[in-house]
Amino acid sequence: MDIYKFLEQVKSGEMQLDAAAEILKNLPYEDLDFAKLDHHRHFRSGFGEVVFCQGKSIEHLTEIYRRFYMHDTNVLGTRASREQYEEVKKVVDCVTYDPLSRILSVEKEKQEKKGLVAVCTGGTADLFVAEEAARTAEFFGSNVVRVYDVGVAGIHRLFSKLEDIRKANCIVAVAGMEGALGGVLAGLVDKPVIAVPTSVGYGTSFGGVSALLTMLNSCAEGLAVVNIDNGFGAGYMATQINRLCKD
Amino acid sequence: MDIYKFLEQVKSGEMQLDAAAEILKNLPYEDLDFAKLDHHRHFRSGFGEVVFCQGKSIEHLTEIYRRFYMHDTNVLGTRASREQYEEVKKVVDCVTYDPLSRILSVEKEKQEKKGLVAVCTGGTADLFVAEEAARTAEFFGSNVVRVYDVGVAGIHRLFSKLEDIRKANCIVAVAGMEGALGGVLAGLVDKPVIAVPTSVGYGTSFGGVSALLTMLNSCAEGLAVVNIDNGFGAGYMATQINRLCKD
Amino acid sequence: MDIYKFLEQVKSGEMQLDAAAEILKNLPYEDLDFAKLDHHRHFRSGFGEVVFCQGKSIEHLTEIYRRFYMHDTNVLGTRASREQYEEVKKVVDCVTYDPLSRILSVEKEKQEKKGLVAVCTGGTADLFVAEEAARTAEFFGSNVVRVYDVGVAGIHRLFSKLEDIRKANCIVAVAGMEGALGGVLAGLVDKPVIAVPTSVGYGTSFGGVSALLTMLNSCAEGLAVVNIDNGFGAGYMATQINRLCKD
Amino acid sequence: MDIYKFLEQVKSGEMQLDAAAEILKNLPYEDLDFAKLDHHRHFRSGFGEVVFCQGKSIEHLTEIYRRFYMHDTNVLGTRASREQYEEVKKVVDCVTYDPLSRILSVEKEKQEKKGLVAVCTGGTADLFVAEEAARTAEFFGSNVVRVYDVGVAGIHRLFSKLEDIRKANCIVAVAGMEGALGGVLAGLVDKPVIAVPTSVGYGTSFGGVSALLTMLNSCAEGLAVVNIDNGFGAGYMATQINRLCKD
Amino acid sequence: MDIYKFLEQVKSGEMQLDAAAEILKNLPYEDLDFAKLDHHRHFRSGFGEVVFCQGKSIEHLTEIYRRFYMHDTNVLGTRASREQYEEVKKVVDCVTYDPLSRILSVEKEKQEKKGLVAVCTGGTADLFVAEEAARTAEFFGSNVVRVYDVGVAGIHRLFSKLEDIRKANCIVAVAGMEGALGGVLAGLVDKPVIAVPTSVGYGTSFGGVSALLTMLNSCAEGLAVVNIDNGFGAGYMATQINRLCKD
Amino acid sequence: MDIYKFLEQVKSGEMQLDAAAEILKNLPYEDLDFAKLDHHRHFRSGFGEVVFCQGKSIEHLTEIYRRFYMHDTNVLGTRASREQYEEVKKVVDCVTYDPLSRILSVEKEKQEKKGLVAVCTGGTADLFVAEEAARTAEFFGSNVVRVYDVGVAGIHRLFSKLEDIRKANCIVAVAGMEGALGGVLAGLVDKPVIAVPTSVGYGTSFGGVSALLTMLNSCAEGLAVVNIDNGFGAGYMATQINRLCKD
Amino acid sequence: MDIYKFLEQVKSGEMQLDAAAEILKNLPYEDLDFAKLDHHRHFRSGFGEVVFCQGKSIEHLTEIYRRFYMHDTNVLGTRASREQYEEVKKVVDCVTYDPLSRILSVEKEKQEKKGLVAVCTGGTADLFVAEEAARTAEFFGSNVVRVYDVGVAGIHRLFSKLEDIRKANCIVAVAGMEGALGGVLAGLVDKPVIAVPTSVGYGTSFGGVSALLTMLNSCAEGLAVVNIDNGFGAGYMATQINRLCKD
Amino acid sequence: MDIYKFLEQVKSGEMQLDAAAEILKNLPYEDLDFAKLDHHRHFRSGFGEVVFCQGKSIEHLTEIYRRFYMHDTNVLGTRASREQYEEVKKVVDCVTYDPLSRILSVEKEKQEKKGLVAVCTGGTADLFVAEEAARTAEFFGSNVVRVYDVGVAGIHRLFSKLEDIRKANCIVAVAGMEGALGGVLAGLVDKPVIAVPTSVGYGTSFGGVSALLTMLNSCAEGLAVVNIDNGFGAGYMATQINRLCKD
Repeated sequence: MDIYKFLEQVKSGEMQLDAAAEILKNLPYEDLDFAKLDHHRHFRSGFGEVVFCQGKSIEHLTEIYRRFYMHDTNVLGTRASREQYEEVKKVVDCVTYDPLSRILSVEKEKQEKKGLVAVCTGGTADLFVAEEAARTAEFFGSNVVRVYDVGVAGIHRLFSKLEDIRKANCIVAVAGMEGALGGVLAGLVDKPVIAVPTSVGYGTSFGGVSALLTMLNSCAEGLAVVNIDNGFGAGYMATQINRLCKD
Repeated sequence: MDIYKFLEQVKSGEMQLDAAAEILKNLPYEDLDFAKLDHHRHFRSGFGEVVFCQGKSIEHLTEIYRRFYMHDTNVLGTRASREQYEEVKKVVDCVTYDPLSRILSVEKEKQEKKGLVAVCTGGTADLFVAEEAARTAEFFGSNVVRVYDVGVAGIHRLFSKLEDIRKANCIVAVAGMEGALGGVLAGLVDKPVIAVPTSVGYGTSFGGVSALLTMLNSCAEGLAVVNIDNGFGAGYMATQINRLCKD
Repeated sequence: MDIYKFLEQVKSGEMQLDAAAEILKNLPYEDLDFAKLDHHRHFRSGFGEVVFCQGKSIEHLTEIYRRFYMHDTNVLGTRASREQYEEVKKVVDCVTYDPLSRILSVEKEKQEKKGLVAVCTGGTADLFVAEEAARTAEFFGSNVVRVYDVGVAGIHRLFSKLEDIRKANCIVAVAGMEGALGGVLAGLVDKPVIAVPTSVGYGTSFGGVSALLTMLNSCAEGLAVVNIDNGFGAGYMATQINRLCKD
Repeated sequence: MDIYKFLEQVKSGEMQLDAAAEILKNLPYEDLDFAKLDHHRHFRSGFGEVVFCQGKSIEHLTEIYRRFYMHDTNVLGTRASREQYEEVKKVVDCVTYDPLSRILSVEKEKQEKKGLVAVCTGGTADLFVAEEAARTAEFFGSNVVRVYDVGVAGIHRLFSKLEDIRKANCIVAVAGMEGALGGVLAGLVDKPVIAVPTSVGYGTSFGGVSALLTMLNSCAEGLAVVNIDNGFGAGYMATQINRLCKD
Repeated sequence: MDIYKFLEQVKSGEMQLDAAAEILKNLPYEDLDFAKLDHHRHFRSGFGEVVFCQGKSIEHLTEIYRRFYMHDTNVLGTRASREQYEEVKKVVDCVTYDPLSRILSVEKEKQEKKGLVAVCTGGTADLFVAEEAARTAEFFGSNVVRVYDVGVAGIHRLFSKLEDIRKANCIVAVAGMEGALGGVLAGLVDKPVIAVPTSVGYGTSFGGVSALLTMLNSCAEGLAVVNIDNGFGAGYMATQINRLCKD
Repeated sequence: MDIYKFLEQVKSGEMQLDAAAEILKNLPYEDLDFAKLDHHRHFRSGFGEVVFCQGKSIEHLTEIYRRFYMHDTNVLGTRASREQYEEVKKVVDCVTYDPLSRILSVEKEKQEKKGLVAVCTGGTADLFVAEEAARTAEFFGSNVVRVYDVGVAGIHRLFSKLEDIRKANCIVAVAGMEGALGGVLAGLVDKPVIAVPTSVGYGTSFGGVSALLTMLNSCAEGLAVVNIDNGFGAGYMATQINRLCKD
Repeated sequence: MDIYKFLEQVKSGEMQLDAAAEILKNLPYEDLDFAKLDHHRHFRSGFGEVVFCQGKSIEHLTEIYRRFYMHDTNVLGTRASREQYEEVKKVVDCVTYDPLSRILSVEKEKQEKKGLVAVCTGGTADLFVAEEAARTAEFFGSNVVRVYDVGVAGIHRLFSKLEDIRKANCIVAVAGMEGALGGVLAGLVDKPVIAVPTSVGYGTSFGGVSALLTMLNSCAEGLAVVNIDNGFGAGYMATQINRLCKD
Repeated sequence: MDIYKFLEQVKSGEMQLDAAAEILKNLPYEDLDFAKLDHHRHFRSGFGEVVFCQGKSIEHLTEIYRRFYMHDTNVLGTRASREQYEEVKKVVDCVTYDPLSRILSVEKEKQEKKGLVAVCTGGTADLFVAEEAARTAEFFGSNVVRVYDVGVAGIHRLFSKLEDIRKANCIVAVAGMEGALGGVLAGLVDKPVIAVPTSVGYGTSFGGVSALLTMLNSCAEGLAVVNIDNGFGAGYMATQINRLCKD
């Protein structure tokens, strides 16, 4: 909304006072009663819509996807169950589902991809989070290189892949258990690293808290952290950074 | 090190085997016995040197600054005490000290500044962390806009400053107590937000843990978090992101 | 019990010493052996009876509802399972059940509703707690306005509803994850806000602890907190406050 | 701001577009650069201004009090040190200081008091928090009855004071260590109880966490909790509730 | 073992050196390889044998019961499942099982009961723990009075039962959620109180930690605490105390 | 108070209604405004008065001791500072102070001692807690045997003292760090053991939490626990148990 | 890789520059894309390969075992499910599975065993962890003596086995609940003790955290700790130590 | 004590029954009342005596050193203050003190050193713990190589020192903050690694808990952990392992 244009329309009488008052009070979103859909977000941020599927009832989720579909909006659903997928598919048949990352997405128009984001993991058990990060970054228009199972317990595995990783504009480091991958990577590259602790582990890993603390306490510069298992958040922010780049 | 050039020198006999073996074993840093100084880091990363001053003895710290000074390296020291400043000044007289951020820096050559980083705080008690972030970003070559005391308890204060904030390539959100500023900002801007929880508060703020959890659990996209009171880490990463930008 | 009336009856001999001693020792409740039913509570507090159903055996729960029913007492059961509902229904057929809030209630006489309580949520996943709060407030005689999915990650959604919220005498703010809704609301309205953290989230939300800490550490005045997921407690206290109001 | 009046002024040309745009962007507060003062708050909420003194520099704090003083605003400062008091007094000589509650206040015009708030404590060590609550409630216009040292370890002491407590519109229950006072009070009165855990105790009291958990888990209805040692928050909310009352 | 008698037998040659060495090395227990059974314990402590059934395999558990049965030892098994009961019953048919307390016991000779232990609970959901305490105390020879559902949220219920409770030599106070019953009881009686926190509750009850902390921080004298849900431990220690009594 | 005697006096007119009403409302304690003194407690429980000195102001503490002194009551003050001692001594000159246990006591009439309580510690650093327990037990009339520095890291030291320990009616086990002493003792004696975790240790001892958890999780029967460093509580309860004994 | 030999081959032209560059960049492992297999590890460390089976998909796990099998490598898989065993067996039929320790191993050539490791447990419920430790130590070539159910609650059981334990070069102490076994053993033997806390227990055992803290805070010298339930880690390190021994 | 020899002496009458009974009851240690000194420990374990100085009174500490000195025993005191040193020196003038490690030792006869232990640190702030480990290992007879400031944030520094580290029989890895050094080292060497978390750090380092968790959750084999800042414990166990070695 251009404030001056709006005020001029008010001044000229082009816009009625009641309508103007309404505009000042409301922002353009659609109210489904149980959920507010923001159709203008894609326009504002250059990103599509995101839905956190976990815990949403089938009825609500199906209605949300149907509405976005009617507005030709790309949608990225996270933490969707297979059951949710099967029900949404009945209504929006172009929806696709990846069981590893649990992403439930509708892409009406494929976005051109640019730049490069590297997604690395400490172990193979971290893949479900890494794939959420990688697919989120791809959905929003980033090229992605995947470098999996390069944890610090066998650090020579990481070194042989460093050249690939250094080409990226932003690195996502996914690790559970001790979670040292993020700090080691930040010490070896010059680009920002987004670290994602995972809930992989047992005993004192405390569902990812150990890895989280390791990452927050890293002595290496250029490292920030997102919530445990939040591959989506890391992939999203990596894309924001990747988009800022010169090419 | 160019691997091919190195190998050709070995092959041609230009380089002795012993020397080559030595090179393969060692990387170029200077060993002070109690600390390893990395003189090539500035070259590798495009950033100067950083020293974590807290807990270092006067003797060690003074020696570290003297060595860097001799190599014409810019140095940013964090968490320095006034006493440390006074002792280092006796040896390196161009050192400067800011008591609020506790930064102890030597800048032999001023860097040209580019782009824009916004540093915001929830309250005035968060300034000591915010200034560490802002001065770190400036030291490494970013322009910085400071937007202080705009916490969510009086959210209209934040809105009147939004236009300024939105011009930045990266936002640093510094907040203690409930720590909601980071999430609210990430919902209002399209650029990456680096959130810094502060130890400001009492009772269940648990020295910043409450703010940290708020930030990690934000529903807004485009937010990552650094350690409690780690203004330096946020300022550094914000600069990495700012440098990636087109202009 | 009027102390003077009681003493006069003792003095006049109207009341036997044994009976008087008994009265001094016992208060009027009914002992089911496994549970003490307090039939005078409605009289004392102006509220009906409340039963915490979770963990109670079918036999005990059925017996409790039957007794209250015989005494013509309204009952609000919380955290009831569908199985409990089906068994109680066999004995007290006017019982009703809401699967979202898990409230199992008997209302023999509909209470007239007065005043206004607003129940707000951060997301749609918080509805199960919000509905417990809203239905509790209604059961005890408050009008309720529901304002759902207005979390701070998209704060414009909240602003368009502020006018409705400000009409209430007391606001219940229900939010999981970062839990910032309570503090933001308290900063925007002049009425007391009762914040309810929910267990919605993952990773460092720690089953609602993150939201709880956010709410306890809010810088906004006029905010108090109840236990995680305790919609009932918030709805009850909101009604106590609403009842105090002039109209 | 009356939206219609504003729009009509724009339409009639009475207000310039530039001025109108400015109004839409800014809300009326004063920017001290390090702090935003909100002079209209008293008008909006019917309450005076509050300043969290702890951690603020003498310069900032003195300037804040001076400005409010110039605008004839009553100010309640919390967690002030004696040193802060002595410095502020040099600039605003009508400021008063209570060392127990650490309240530093300026009351230009005495408010008429109404209704009744009861402030109760478990022990005598909780008085510093209770006085913060009581004086806050008085500052904002409530009559207050103090009922101190009535903890549950000697529950007969509480019972002899119940009659006084029951006259209040709202009860503030302040307790450390086991913190059971809040729940016991809520079971004995029909009015809302705001419980304040205190940091009084040792060992597993964990600086008030034990009392906080006790209060959050109370089985009694009509109880909500504020942060550890937050007497101010409880006194403020008790006044909000007290003001809602019929007389 | 009487040391002097033993030494005299060695001196007199009544006991061979090898046998004596063996005796000094071993104490009289039976080694089942996976478990050490102590047949003399009953003799030493005046108590029967106790088996922690949870997590034991059917094979191991059955063998343990069979051996004790063969030695005519009374056995009290705790935390037994119904499946374990059914399997043990095939081998030791006089075994009995109580599904509420999950006690699996063999009593070959009924013990005469003496003294009095009171077992109290805050709510009806705490019964599974209270019954473990009560039945343990009875198994080891105490008379038990049960006083259930007398929690502090409705403290008048407790007062009407005080006379019964005060007759006991030792009181077991079982409570979940806020867990205040232990402290209130200790303030009202002169006998030792053993408090048992239960895992009953939700949210910040943290599986009994809230109740545990309340009990540990009680200001009342004469209160000690056992592990969460450890009804057995409380019943056992209550009996030790009860046995010390004059009658 | 004998209920029947009271009622008869009411009936006979011997007691005025006003006086009777007053009696029913108040229990016999003295109200100092900031503290309630219970002069009848000694009579009711057979124990003297206890004052928790820590955090009490000199004025309050002195007044409390003076009043008890005037009523000829023995007083045991815990966690008193030397400064408090010196001020109280000015008013009540028969007060005595033990700097190790920090007990500040007035004993007008020496109690005859009976039975036996054993107080054991793991190390010498635990003595400050052990002495609080031992002197409390002695104050309230128990004989005490002290067995110090017998921790499980050198378990032979404990065994040589077992005979002494086994003579006691109740054992107090005081230990910090790993805190295993309580469980080992309970496995070796047949009398109730009250375990006191101490804050002695560093790192993961977490101020006594490690020792507390060890004690709560002991597999040995006949063990209950009090708060960290709560020597007083253990000594008090040990005396309650010791008093129950036959001789 | 012998650096000098490598450099001489480069110098002599025996090795092509491209090949040499490749060697410098890569270390000899096989890349399965989802997992990096290190076939030279056995050679480097004298140990076989270890696979953490938990959480690995059947496809990935089967492929990993197949590859190792093809390279004639012994494999020790930990935390394997029976289902995983059955699927791997279809491909590698010499695989064996132990359901108690959940070890899934392939031993192509039996290793000669040497030295002695003692594996002790506090209770029978700790066997699943102890067996993981014992079988790991045996797999890597240690003789193992098992001493089970010798916890400190009945410490005489431990003493009768001390002679056996003292023969070992390294002791593994496995215990849940209070976890005191490790410290008691370290006080009784002169060899290094590796303590393994187990998740056995309930209530405040917090899934093994209580036992972990006990072990970390032991006053006995010669004790180090591994993660909760990490029998594998203890068995591996015990073997490393056992191998260092003279015979 | 040789059991057979003892028994023969009893049999032959060479030893009186009373004396024999005494021997069976007591182990040879000296009882100072406040501390038990074990003069035979050096004989049993081949190690000298250790005293934990922190928290011990000057009187107790001085007496302990004096007694050991009289028995010609070497003593290693840990966590001693300079004040303690100065007082002990007055009595035992050959005592030496190192202010960095806070070790207060008496070495009457220098032990010959053997084998090799490597002590590594992540940063220079960890030196106070590393020196405690190194000096402990030297005191008990190990050669020590110190490799300081080789943390993973600049991992090339570690690699250039690997050759030195690999020569040791046991490695002590000392690190605060993220604490990743232990796991990285264990992945690079074949010898047992004892990891020591330090309390160095701020914010979420939680006084060393973050580093502790990292170490416990390491995926690398051959790593065990001691308490936070427990350099002594690591140095002691490293020596135990070093002594087992062939040369």
